[in-house]
Amino acid sequence: MKTSRLEAFSDGVIAIIITIMVLSLRKPAGTELESLRPVLPELLTYVLSFVYLGIYWNNHHHMLLVTRSVNGAILWANLHLLFWLSLIPFVTGWLAESHGAPWPIALYGAVLLAAAISYTVLQAQIIRHHGSDSPLAAAVGRDFKGKLSMAMYAAAIALAFGFGWISEGIYVAVALLWVIPDRRIEAVLRDVSGT
Amino acid sequence: MKTSRLEAFSDGVIAIIITIMVLSLRKPAGTELESLRPVLPELLTYVLSFVYLGIYWNNHHHMLLVTRSVNGAILWANLHLLFWLSLIPFVTGWLAESHGAPWPIALYGAVLLAAAISYTVLQAQIIRHHGSDSPLAAAVGRDFKGKLSMAMYAAAIALAFGFGWISEGIYVAVALLWVIPDRRIEAVLRDVSGT
Amino acid sequence: MKTSRLEAFSDGVIAIIITIMVLSLRKPAGTELESLRPVLPELLTYVLSFVYLGIYWNNHHHMLLVTRSVNGAILWANLHLLFWLSLIPFVTGWLAESHGAPWPIALYGAVLLAAAISYTVLQAQIIRHHGSDSPLAAAVGRDFKGKLSMAMYAAAIALAFGFGWISEGIYVAVALLWVIPDRRIEAVLRDVSGT
Amino acid sequence: MKTSRLEAFSDGVIAIIITIMVLSLRKPAGTELESLRPVLPELLTYVLSFVYLGIYWNNHHHMLLVTRSVNGAILWANLHLLFWLSLIPFVTGWLAESHGAPWPIALYGAVLLAAAISYTVLQAQIIRHHGSDSPLAAAVGRDFKGKLSMAMYAAAIALAFGFGWISEGIYVAVALLWVIPDRRIEAVLRDVSGT
Repeated sequence: MKTSRLEAFSDGVIAIIITIMVLSLRKPAGTELESLRPVLPELLTYVLSFVYLGIYWNNHHHMLLVTRSVNGAILWANLHLLFWLSLIPFVTGWLAESHGAPWPIALYGAVLLAAAISYTVLQAQIIRHHGSDSPLAAAVGRDFKGKLSMAMYAAAIALAFGFGWISEGIYVAVALLWVIPDRRIEAVLRDVSGT
Repeated sequence: MKTSRLEAFSDGVIAIIITIMVLSLRKPAGTELESLRPVLPELLTYVLSFVYLGIYWNNHHHMLLVTRSVNGAILWANLHLLFWLSLIPFVTGWLAESHGAPWPIALYGAVLLAAAISYTVLQAQIIRHHGSDSPLAAAVGRDFKGKLSMAMYAAAIALAFGFGWISEGIYVAVALLWVIPDRRIEAVLRDVSGT
Repeated sequence: MKTSRLEAFSDGVIAIIITIMVLSLRKPAGTELESLRPVLPELLTYVLSFVYLGIYWNNHHHMLLVTRSVNGAILWANLHLLFWLSLIPFVTGWLAESHGAPWPIALYGAVLLAAAISYTVLQAQIIRHHGSDSPLAAAVGRDFKGKLSMAMYAAAIALAFGFGWISEGIYVAVALLWVIPDRRIEAVLRDVSGT
Repeated sequence: MKTSRLEAFSDGVIAIIITIMVLSLRKPAGTELESLRPVLPELLTYVLSFVYLGIYWNNHHHMLLVTRSVNGAILWANLHLLFWLSLIPFVTGWLAESHGAPWPIALYGAVLLAAAISYTVLQAQIIRHHGSDSPLAAAVGRDFKGKLSMAMYAAAIALAFGFGWISEGIYVAVALLWVIPDRRIEAVLRDVSGT
């Protein structure tokens, strides 16, 4: 089976998820600058989720570049990832309106953790299909960054009950870990993880 | 006519249907764990409909892999299938809010049945266009699984009036029939149906 | 310029328009069969608009099959068509809730008429770009069916004030004119229009 | 890395943004012609935003036609542009309901300005990747039109506080600057900017 239609379908779903999130931004109640203030935390949560979905699209793009063919297990692992990503607008909306309440913060982290796990499963399925000496297996290595992210999500979920702002800081930190480190941090991580 | 644009359009429509369903999930009323409880049946119905749409995308993908060209009848049969799939978010939303009332359960099954019938019609049109000795005709065979699914939907519609939980169990069972059986069950079905 | 990205973008927009219309279907107020009754006229209007968008996608598909390249004027003529198509969910929603009031019926026809005109403009731009001896020019001919449709829309708009049901019948008739006549009517029209 | 998936993803996102805006158009409250009147300013704002998104798609299309490959920086610069475009439905909705209040007019301009800046950044990243002697660098030149647009947005933001109608006129003027000038104005600008 060819990867092009899997790519196209995933692109479509991620493009829609990233875009419909903006529909959940409530229109300001008035026309003054102050009426934007209650929208601001929603907007910041929206930015964070936009960045996360951008990271997933980016990494998914790179992963499929070294994927030559797909099988049934990969198709379902991909749909499983898309399922968790599709819940991001839902938890983003809840988090945005909750002013630091613990459960919305924890659930946001839980969906991010589930998405990260399902991405790892998809990655493992592709590597199994292509062999452990494939370019993807070499590129992934011991996947230090992926494992670190999952540990950070788990910590953020636990910290949500009492230290919600730390949890939110962790969500920002993980996002930065994947966006920024195109040069230095990535080189460091490469040394650490032995890829 | 080439199949690529039919594929792309169908991918687009299915990707949107699968994604906008999440928009119908109501935001929890509060910020406590308990406020998630009324959302839970909606979420489970959403998961079920997500899986069904994933199955349709998957099967559609496989069917078009062995379709070399399309004609006007195939284009319209495909739009007919997409129409019924587009109603899934509507019946999912009704079912999710109805706490076991018979009509929403029956209508959910009726839309699944109509989608299954329109899929069979599309399949038949493609086989007619490619000839009964085409790879698709061989792969479909007597289409035991398709016919079994339609019979199960019909049973679930009838059982909705009095035995709603059995109907819902049947919807889950048909979905599993198409997701799980990549190895054993599929082999059994292959023996039974003689494909 | 290549036509592939114009195709992909148009497919995306039409796929979204055809799909988000279902979002405007209100969930039934209760769980009884009767609670579906007020949704029924909405559903029928939805079906009609779905068929119209299917026809446009279908015809657009065929037109681009014989389009080798595009220029700036074609890109904008295409966006102009997509603009009017994007208003179909809006007028569909108004028509569906209006129980035969004249203005919603007339506006529905006005948007269909504007879409038909913009389609004709797009067609003319493509023919101008490819020359009057191009396959598209030959296929379009005197465009009897297109002109007949526009005349019927205009009549339906006028009849909306007093004879709303006739207008709605005309909208159904024009749709059938484009869906059904794959064999006989098309041959007749071909004789009449001299293509 | 190939540009095709970047194109497809961007097309998807822009197609969705341009289409879901229509969801924010409120259904008229009654069935009379008068009930359309409050919808009219919303409709005009919708048309303006539709044209802006059409311009961005158009220019993005042309830019990627002369882009042979992409790197990580280009992927993120592209996502940055899509982020600002995704806010257009939000500010369009606020502007449409605000009957000339200054902050919604200013915010609309601010998002257009941010989108223009992010487009310039994307353009610069692509030029840096392809070299200053690339066809894109030659086509962009000193980018007089881009700089003029940004200056006009800045002026419109300032003028929103007291001269809101001038600001709105500027938004229309910038759109026309990019839509109309396929022949004469473009030639003039070409002379002025030395491209």
